[in-house]
Amino acid sequence: MKDVIIVGGSGAGVTAGIYAARSGLEVLVITEDFGGQLLETEFVENYPGFKHISGVDLAKALEEHLREYENKGVEILMPDKVKKIEKLGEKHFKVLTEQGKEFESKTVIVASGMKRKKLNVPGEEEYKNKGVFYCGVCDGPLYKGKVVAVIGAGYAGVEDALFLSNICEKVFLVNWGEELGGEEITKKKLLQVKNVEYVNNAQTTQILGDKFVTGFKYKDRKSGEEKEIKVDAVFVDIGQLPNTEFIECKKTENGAIIVDKNNMTSVEGLFAAGDSTDAAKAQLVISSAEGSKAGLAVAEYLKE
Amino acid sequence: MKDVIIVGGSGAGVTAGIYAARSGLEVLVITEDFGGQLLETEFVENYPGFKHISGVDLAKALEEHLREYENKGVEILMPDKVKKIEKLGEKHFKVLTEQGKEFESKTVIVASGMKRKKLNVPGEEEYKNKGVFYCGVCDGPLYKGKVVAVIGAGYAGVEDALFLSNICEKVFLVNWGEELGGEEITKKKLLQVKNVEYVNNAQTTQILGDKFVTGFKYKDRKSGEEKEIKVDAVFVDIGQLPNTEFIECKKTENGAIIVDKNNMTSVEGLFAAGDSTDAAKAQLVISSAEGSKAGLAVAEYLKE
Repeated sequence: MKDVIIVGGSGAGVTAGIYAARSGLEVLVITEDFGGQLLETEFVENYPGFKHISGVDLAKALEEHLREYENKGVEILMPDKVKKIEKLGEKHFKVLTEQGKEFESKTVIVASGMKRKKLNVPGEEEYKNKGVFYCGVCDGPLYKGKVVAVIGAGYAGVEDALFLSNICEKVFLVNWGEELGGEEITKKKLLQVKNVEYVNNAQTTQILGDKFVTGFKYKDRKSGEEKEIKVDAVFVDIGQLPNTEFIECKKTENGAIIVDKNNMTSVEGLFAAGDSTDAAKAQLVISSAEGSKAGLAVAEYLKE
Repeated sequence: MKDVIIVGGSGAGVTAGIYAARSGLEVLVITEDFGGQLLETEFVENYPGFKHISGVDLAKALEEHLREYENKGVEILMPDKVKKIEKLGEKHFKVLTEQGKEFESKTVIVASGMKRKKLNVPGEEEYKNKGVFYCGVCDGPLYKGKVVAVIGAGYAGVEDALFLSNICEKVFLVNWGEELGGEEITKKKLLQVKNVEYVNNAQTTQILGDKFVTGFKYKDRKSGEEKEIKVDAVFVDIGQLPNTEFIECKKTENGAIIVDKNNMTSVEGLFAAGDSTDAAKAQLVISSAEGSKAGLAVAEYLKE
């Protein structure tokens, strides 16, 4: 029986693990990977202390930090994924994984992060991984010298468009509205780039292809006209949703876990931290801080 | 006229500066030093991504990270200290420094951290820096092979006692109660050390000395007896108070600035983050996250 099972291995999960172990708890971390969405991030420049580091290297630094505690209270199960969390009684949970394993613990911290939203248009499922992708940094390098579209012009879309503009011959940035989202510093860089064409007020309606993606259709939201653009790949960057289907507790409409100021959910003993919660800001330093708070809160709760 | 003046240069101030600059704001950071209480910390092992780093090196990493933005919106005034913040009108503040400088800005973020509490007993002021200190890591090395006392057995006291036990012949750990505070991992390490003597249920009543400290008196809180112990130095570790005397806004009884979920104080346009606020947890990752939230909140506020 562990003191706490931590679900997830990115900033929140790793930091919760470090803090829980340093508080003397027996910890099990179950995760598919270390770093989560960091692995889909080219460079991180806003995690304080690292002025410029690749997402992969920062993920590695987090993993190494947690592994420091492997003989000091932390056990790691990777890769696996939590399928179900059952509350059996006071300070007693059962956690089941996709690979059919079962564990028991006194508390659980859910730090399962977010996943990319889908367009839900014809062709999207059919051409998934055949020209439809959800991460420019991960899959963009396959399209060197090609013409691609980024759908969505928020934080992730702007980052991906900038990244892809260095690799591809041309990038269409398909924007629901007219303004770019994301950080000013990235927007400024993007606006200096010459091979990005802005497609504004555009609602994507279909992904076209034969064996692979050949283009996409969109509706001009001002004129109502249907238009078509030929591209070799489409990168969908229209936002994210919390990974919380497997958890039963109070959530927002969006599926984000609602936590109190001690990071406890509506279920006593079930805690949550980071981008799977309603405190989500999609910033590593913030989700890590939430992880540290959850780790400390669990230690406090178990003392009672 | 700056967009934002940031008061302080530790985790919260530096991170607020990075995030504000990346949001395209003109930023002035006014601080006495970079790192604040990090400079008084031997090693940091719980800031995610750095498994073991000296406080001084981590402070340097934070400074370097902020300085990356010196030609991209960030100006730094160091060393100086803010004496007064006046609100002149909507989105208009005047900030005065101890060195007599004046600056204007649209918003202010106070990230001024905490300072050590005093005992307020006879001899404390008289022997300050003559055997009375507030930071074992900073001043302990002067007492190699000597006998010292740490007063206070919370987070900082336990850390200091462990640090000093490696340097000094003997350490008295003077505890108001009987339990040790701080992280389990540090407590465990301390309990394995042989040259620490625990003085429990002790209220320190006087610091003794001639030219330098020679000992201290305390009242045994159980027997009521007054006792005396001879030591060469006394390290006072009885907690901290927020550095907020210079700011007029709503505060807790303790002087911590009360902030809303956007890190705004009771004064519109005046924001605060980190250990000077009521969200204080004295953990670098948490105060840094608060800084990032404040930086983003200011950018949002200035857009309105």
